[in-house]
Amino acid sequence: MNLPLGYRYSALYAGIRKAAKPDLALIVSDAPASAAAVYTTNLVQAAPVRLSRTHLQETGGIARAVIVNAGNANCATRTGARVALSTAKAAAKALKCKAAEVLPSSTGVIGVELNPALITNALPALVEGLAPERFLDAADAILTTDLVRKVAYAETGGIRVAGMTKGSGMIHPGMATTLAYVMTDAIVPPAELRKHLKSAVNRSYNRLSVDGDMSTNDTLLVLANGASGKKVNKAAFQAALDEVCQSLAQQIARDGEGATRFVEIDVSGARDEAAAAKIARAIANSPLVKTAIAGSDPNWGRILCAAGYSGAAFEPAQVDIYLQGVKVCRKGLAAQYNEAALTKKLNEKDCLIRFVIGGEGRGTARFWTCDLTHGYIDINGSYRT
Amino acid sequence: MNLPLGYRYSALYAGIRKAAKPDLALIVSDAPASAAAVYTTNLVQAAPVRLSRTHLQETGGIARAVIVNAGNANCATRTGARVALSTAKAAAKALKCKAAEVLPSSTGVIGVELNPALITNALPALVEGLAPERFLDAADAILTTDLVRKVAYAETGGIRVAGMTKGSGMIHPGMATTLAYVMTDAIVPPAELRKHLKSAVNRSYNRLSVDGDMSTNDTLLVLANGASGKKVNKAAFQAALDEVCQSLAQQIARDGEGATRFVEIDVSGARDEAAAAKIARAIANSPLVKTAIAGSDPNWGRILCAAGYSGAAFEPAQVDIYLQGVKVCRKGLAAQYNEAALTKKLNEKDCLIRFVIGGEGRGTARFWTCDLTHGYIDINGSYRT
Repeated sequence: MNLPLGYRYSALYAGIRKAAKPDLALIVSDAPASAAAVYTTNLVQAAPVRLSRTHLQETGGIARAVIVNAGNANCATRTGARVALSTAKAAAKALKCKAAEVLPSSTGVIGVELNPALITNALPALVEGLAPERFLDAADAILTTDLVRKVAYAETGGIRVAGMTKGSGMIHPGMATTLAYVMTDAIVPPAELRKHLKSAVNRSYNRLSVDGDMSTNDTLLVLANGASGKKVNKAAFQAALDEVCQSLAQQIARDGEGATRFVEIDVSGARDEAAAAKIARAIANSPLVKTAIAGSDPNWGRILCAAGYSGAAFEPAQVDIYLQGVKVCRKGLAAQYNEAALTKKLNEKDCLIRFVIGGEGRGTARFWTCDLTHGYIDINGSYRT
Repeated sequence: MNLPLGYRYSALYAGIRKAAKPDLALIVSDAPASAAAVYTTNLVQAAPVRLSRTHLQETGGIARAVIVNAGNANCATRTGARVALSTAKAAAKALKCKAAEVLPSSTGVIGVELNPALITNALPALVEGLAPERFLDAADAILTTDLVRKVAYAETGGIRVAGMTKGSGMIHPGMATTLAYVMTDAIVPPAELRKHLKSAVNRSYNRLSVDGDMSTNDTLLVLANGASGKKVNKAAFQAALDEVCQSLAQQIARDGEGATRFVEIDVSGARDEAAAAKIARAIANSPLVKTAIAGSDPNWGRILCAAGYSGAAFEPAQVDIYLQGVKVCRKGLAAQYNEAALTKKLNEKDCLIRFVIGGEGRGTARFWTCDLTHGYIDINGSYRT
């Protein structure tokens, strides 16, 4: 897969997290790039989220670099704002650009002071290590409880899009979720890039849930540096951006904390898209549905029940539910099916729930989540130790 | 503890659930009683919920009997309405009252046909077994995944209140939750009883969450038969009813599926009671908070984070958080405390989270929940098998 032109990446271990694996990543665009971002809607926001937003406002949507640390969220700390600012300033100095052109991000534990010297001391080596082909090194350095690397690529009309993301817990659709960085070498002005991003997020990261918790640090950032020298038509660019964002979102669900199953929920026949999304979200967030899937139990009653409290209006007697393509509920009642054959299908790694409302409604929505298992409890019962 | 006068109870095993323990309960008031109920707000409602509501409307709030089965929710079934009606009719015939004076309830698996003969065949023996002292037998027969019986009593000014409830999963505040029956021998007209019930529910069952799922069968019913011959003042009756309902709600959280810790969340200093309840609910519903408590991890960042996405407005820099009385967060930042001593306190069975917002706000709310453990996964991964 071809990476977008005009970007360089670097990563190293700066000693921020306990485990000695890379925890500091740098993404640099050789030329000033159009930049657009969406952030957590949590009232409690980490210092780098606030600074990143301020920087984008100051520059009118232009950025040169992104610096990300894992292992400490730099949130709810005395020195948070100062650490985020000194990080951006030090990176700007090393890269010979303005501090406002550097966008900082952090992820990790909340409420523990982040020592800024760990970052500033590491900066010379980090900048030294910048190289166009080190995309995957940067993608690895932003991971926390993730078990696998999450990247996605698209190419259309001679422009390229590449994205990296992290996250497997504290995932809930409420705006962006988790950290994600998408680079493209297309020519896209900042205002246009913001529209494309908003549209892409609504059908990718806002359709994703692992546990219903929303982070204080969520950031999804897109950079467009125009290094390809090409401007493709809007629909083509949107399709490429959607493809990358949806792939990244799905990879997060697939790597959900403790997950053994990837779950896609397809709702159709709802009054409108908003109603369909409400139903899909309630099903995706139901711990009872998620534990049933972990146990390969075709407990469609819980799916119907979750839809019932979603807040969306529908007629229960018009609902068909399919698990792995097998109709388990017909017009709101138990359907006839071969239980042994279905259980075998439910043991597969991917689970598809289709919730079909009969009638005239044209609202559809797709949503991604994972099952709820012992692994989630293990990971989160002792996260800080 | 003295039971309310003028009630008789019975229970037996009718073969509705697989395990051979009582699954059918009957509560009878010797005289017609004032009756008030709140039901699930789920769009998908079980047949007995619909019939019970209709019956109360028909009688203007008068009832003679309650018949409850466990093991089958009688929800999303072809014959649901017929089964509920034939149950009420058969019970009315045996008790020599009107069918509309019998209120049916069901709890158990959704989407499986309930054989009405199991109930009608058991009715003669069930009525035969009625006795004033068999309150606990009835309380035991309505349990499903519950590990312990849940009953509560109060007495004031010569009148008595006694309640029984069930539930440990699919518990979420959205109206009533789970099944609960409260009997009193006070004289209370139906309209007054409805007001008392609404007020009691708002500060008991609507402040309770186990897993954020809302059932299709939730019913909380109060009967007042006046057998004491006494009418106490409104405040005294409300206090007695509140005491019973709060005790029952807390017992449900204490017996939450897989729970090892009972958690009380006290929020104060919010703008108003509604804002305080929003914050408390978000903390109570956060899987990350609940797994941290299971792991005795004083991860206050997750508590602050959950409050941040609750939708209630507050200033994070004014927040103090106490765990077991120990201040772990001061003005939104880490406080100094002895970690070993706190961990020891967190190993206790009861956990108290105090979320204190500084400033002028007078909004307070108390909320009850439990931790999230492997046990919850085990119970719900194979509920139907």
